[in-house]
Amino acid sequence: MSRVINFSAGPATLPLPVLERVKSELLDFEGTGMSLMEHSHRGAAYSAVHAEAKALLKELLSVPDTHDILFMQGGASGQFALVPMNFLHQGQSADYIITGTWSEKALVEARIQGEAREAANTKADGAFTRVPNADELELDPAASYVHFTSNNTVAGTQFHSFPEVGDRSLVCDMSSDLLWRPIDVSKFDLIYAGAQKNLGPAGVTIVIIRKDLMESGREDIAKIFRYSVIAGKDSLYNTGPTFPIYVVRNVLSWVKEQGGAAAMEARNRQKADLLYGLIDQHSSFYKSPIEAGSRSVMNAVFRLPNEELEQKFIAECADAGMVGVKGHRSVGGIRISMYNAMEPGCIETLAGFMKTFCSQNG
Amino acid sequence: MSRVINFSAGPATLPLPVLERVKSELLDFEGTGMSLMEHSHRGAAYSAVHAEAKALLKELLSVPDTHDILFMQGGASGQFALVPMNFLHQGQSADYIITGTWSEKALVEARIQGEAREAANTKADGAFTRVPNADELELDPAASYVHFTSNNTVAGTQFHSFPEVGDRSLVCDMSSDLLWRPIDVSKFDLIYAGAQKNLGPAGVTIVIIRKDLMESGREDIAKIFRYSVIAGKDSLYNTGPTFPIYVVRNVLSWVKEQGGAAAMEARNRQKADLLYGLIDQHSSFYKSPIEAGSRSVMNAVFRLPNEELEQKFIAECADAGMVGVKGHRSVGGIRISMYNAMEPGCIETLAGFMKTFCSQNG
Repeated sequence: MSRVINFSAGPATLPLPVLERVKSELLDFEGTGMSLMEHSHRGAAYSAVHAEAKALLKELLSVPDTHDILFMQGGASGQFALVPMNFLHQGQSADYIITGTWSEKALVEARIQGEAREAANTKADGAFTRVPNADELELDPAASYVHFTSNNTVAGTQFHSFPEVGDRSLVCDMSSDLLWRPIDVSKFDLIYAGAQKNLGPAGVTIVIIRKDLMESGREDIAKIFRYSVIAGKDSLYNTGPTFPIYVVRNVLSWVKEQGGAAAMEARNRQKADLLYGLIDQHSSFYKSPIEAGSRSVMNAVFRLPNEELEQKFIAECADAGMVGVKGHRSVGGIRISMYNAMEPGCIETLAGFMKTFCSQNG
Repeated sequence: MSRVINFSAGPATLPLPVLERVKSELLDFEGTGMSLMEHSHRGAAYSAVHAEAKALLKELLSVPDTHDILFMQGGASGQFALVPMNFLHQGQSADYIITGTWSEKALVEARIQGEAREAANTKADGAFTRVPNADELELDPAASYVHFTSNNTVAGTQFHSFPEVGDRSLVCDMSSDLLWRPIDVSKFDLIYAGAQKNLGPAGVTIVIIRKDLMESGREDIAKIFRYSVIAGKDSLYNTGPTFPIYVVRNVLSWVKEQGGAAAMEARNRQKADLLYGLIDQHSSFYKSPIEAGSRSVMNAVFRLPNEELEQKFIAECADAGMVGVKGHRSVGGIRISMYNAMEPGCIETLAGFMKTFCSQNG
């Protein structure tokens, strides 16, 4: 079959040149006579990949020397637990900004480890349709850190400016939008992201952490779960997910070739403007439930006049070679994920389809 | 370059047909028009792979219905922490049988969580050269579980019969020898294994756990770190390492084609008999430091008369297309890892080389 257009929310579409590179060297990595999967994590071939992945991320996001970059396992759900295990010291409390399913889950894990409060919660009538305004944040002056989710894949919302938290540590789950544009990493104490949206395949978690926060972590927890231990061994404390890290390296290399984070931003805004523009032009047929200022550039969610039409839309998309358009099971509707790897031409194809679908069914 | 013979201890060589299968469907998995890496972990294509991997492991190891099979992340080092976090209840103590680096590390993690004692320790003169005899085990009658490492990749030792622990739970790190032969899974309460030796690439951890042990686990720890939570969602509590699991599925499918665990045992014994036989025939040149009854069928370690000759051996191996033969940095010497995927013909090639090397340098 020819390549489909894959709008899945994650694991998500990867750049075709990245996959072609993986395929071309699958049996013989750089003339070593074996697959990258077969290389020792301490050997020269993999070590170079590991170092390059880290260097590329440092370059693409201008990560300052105050911060370390780690490759971990367990995804964002693992980080939901590791953040409070490391940094929620006894007698302290952490603040969580609740904007969707993922921040709710992060809060549940925090409350198993200690005290955590909601600094904001934008749920209204059972749904999340926006991120909070700055003046809605009720921050605990003594909060050991403030946690938020920068992009909500289920709700389809995204922070377009980041919370100001004063002297408190700022922790962000950027699983679904890290590297969609340049950011000022120095504003954050800890950023984490499962790779399977903008960065690569599932199985590796990217962590960018301020060194002095890391050194303040609890030392009475399991060694393998301390950020300081992982950083102290350059993410080679134990055998890491070498192949997923290798694919991440290839994705980062592709991002750099495209022009870096700024080029990603231009490309992503172009796609989102096209799609949201079309939705707004046909607003009697395609309904965006999301407040305009909170719309996600990564995941656009919308409804059709009824569920029957939504089913028809999904089926006709599939016939046209477009898959992964069904909304998350908890909210229904349609969801179009358009991470870095999604080609603008694919959104044009979708937009053309949507115009026709509206005129035939509207 | 043509394919080298890769004796690495892990990540390790994989069956060539497995890699060829991965390569052939890398851009288009089963006619879906996308890579397996791009498929949602909740979609039909990946779900079938996930289920098949589990079913194959159940079949190949005759896993009884009393046990669950889980796919986790974090490797054996993660399990070193998760086992005591889940099962070392307050006021209890666990027993650890110490036979090398890995069991030492497991004990360190256990002691961070609670009480743990050494039920045996075979270190002598700074080295581990054997596993304990049954009569050396000093088990705590009240131990909540007994933990051991079935095969020691660094030391080159292996348990050829398993500890009898009475009513206590038996927990085993089988990272480096799971599926090398048939085992009676019902004797174990928990078996775990990083995949990167016999089972696939790095990035996924196989866990086989008795359901009633699992249900007894602590519920005051992070949700993501409870075996019961992972099992309750069939290892899809969060996005797992889909691509590594897919490669494991392919490896398991290959093992089945070869005749299953019994065929692996025959093949592995043939390789080990050939190599250890050659070492013993040339025992004035190749010295095995390991007691005969403790020799590992997976990792054969040996010394040459001096380090200069060892360096020469390693260099001439590389010239002959054989890599990964250097012993672990903590013990030196030579190490030949010959997991399931290692073809018997490769050990014959090595044996021929070793005979010649001995005659030229002995």
